[in-house]
Amino acid sequence: MGTVRVDMSMSLNGFVAAPNTGAQNPLGVGGTRLHRWLFAAPQDPRDTAVIAEVRDSVGAVVLGRTTFDVGVDIWGDVPWSPATKESSAMPSGTFSFVAGGVAEAVERAVSAAGARDVEVMGADTARQVIAAGLPDELQINLVPVLLGRGVRMFPELGGEQVELDGSGVVESSAVTHLRYRVSRPASDR
Amino acid sequence: MGTVRVDMSMSLNGFVAAPNTGAQNPLGVGGTRLHRWLFAAPQDPRDTAVIAEVRDSVGAVVLGRTTFDVGVDIWGDVPWSPATKESSAMPSGTFSFVAGGVAEAVERAVSAAGARDVEVMGADTARQVIAAGLPDELQINLVPVLLGRGVRMFPELGGEQVELDGSGVVESSAVTHLRYRVSRPASDR
Repeated sequence: MGTVRVDMSMSLNGFVAAPNTGAQNPLGVGGTRLHRWLFAAPQDPRDTAVIAEVRDSVGAVVLGRTTFDVGVDIWGDVPWSPATKESSAMPSGTFSFVAGGVAEAVERAVSAAGARDVEVMGADTARQVIAAGLPDELQINLVPVLLGRGVRMFPELGGEQVELDGSGVVESSAVTHLRYRVSRPASDR
Repeated sequence: MGTVRVDMSMSLNGFVAAPNTGAQNPLGVGGTRLHRWLFAAPQDPRDTAVIAEVRDSVGAVVLGRTTFDVGVDIWGDVPWSPATKESSAMPSGTFSFVAGGVAEAVERAVSAAGARDVEVMGADTARQVIAAGLPDELQINLVPVLLGRGVRMFPELGGEQVELDGSGVVESSAVTHLRYRVSRPASDR
């Protein structure tokens, strides 16, 4: 079974989107700052390597309706990109709508991914998946900016603290990639 | 003139203290997790080097009344440590109470520090100094844990986003030290 990984670009002060997200501003007004490293030309080769490593490991993606609708297009030919949705072709996969909540969505993605990893994207979906204790890994692409306000990545979880194991830092000229394993009791899943 | 640096240990989800701070629990109930790297025995040599580098550069410290009262003792013989306050000796400096707000406190610390740096410590004071746009640098010692709830390091700033320049990452076995320069218009100060 692969790894369930939440992967988000977050400002140093904890925001994963600016206010007023929508089709014109998928990451909110001013929020494109968070993805500048992703769409930089030329892209820092260290960022290119991180993106390739993630993309090559992923067998299924869980994303929310907002991300699907606004079509944040990270990998170029994903099923939810605007170009793909407008064409009749479905070059790189299929997608399913899941109305039963994040636990069901993650379970179905794990099943679809087989031995490959499951990538969780989108601010609200990531918050729900974290709150439900479902990720095996967190990948935070930490962006050197303080946004004035916005959507926070981490909700107040309540309850116990969750230990993480840092499993590597990659620093590029544009962003710091942090990856953590989530520690949890062996009985938990 | 030295650098005004906010230096805080923060959980990955943005908390610098757990709830219910007080003399018995300076970092809140469960909050000592944030300073485990600092008081580890043996301490990771990479953490020792970061602590020494900060300590050796500092000419004055700005801290809030809570930090003073609870006596969080990072460097062993600082004026606000419990042992120092109980003795009549003042081995490593003097302290002044400033009632005119953080801007005045930082101004006086800069003046006292001369060519050396000013270190800002304590959750509430750090928040106020950041909200006032006063730091030249942020040093975040990012702790691999998600606290259930607590005191957030970063208030909603409102207004414009603030650009940062990453100036180095030091990863130890216990914590990730991130340092940033704060970009601001040359006219600002």
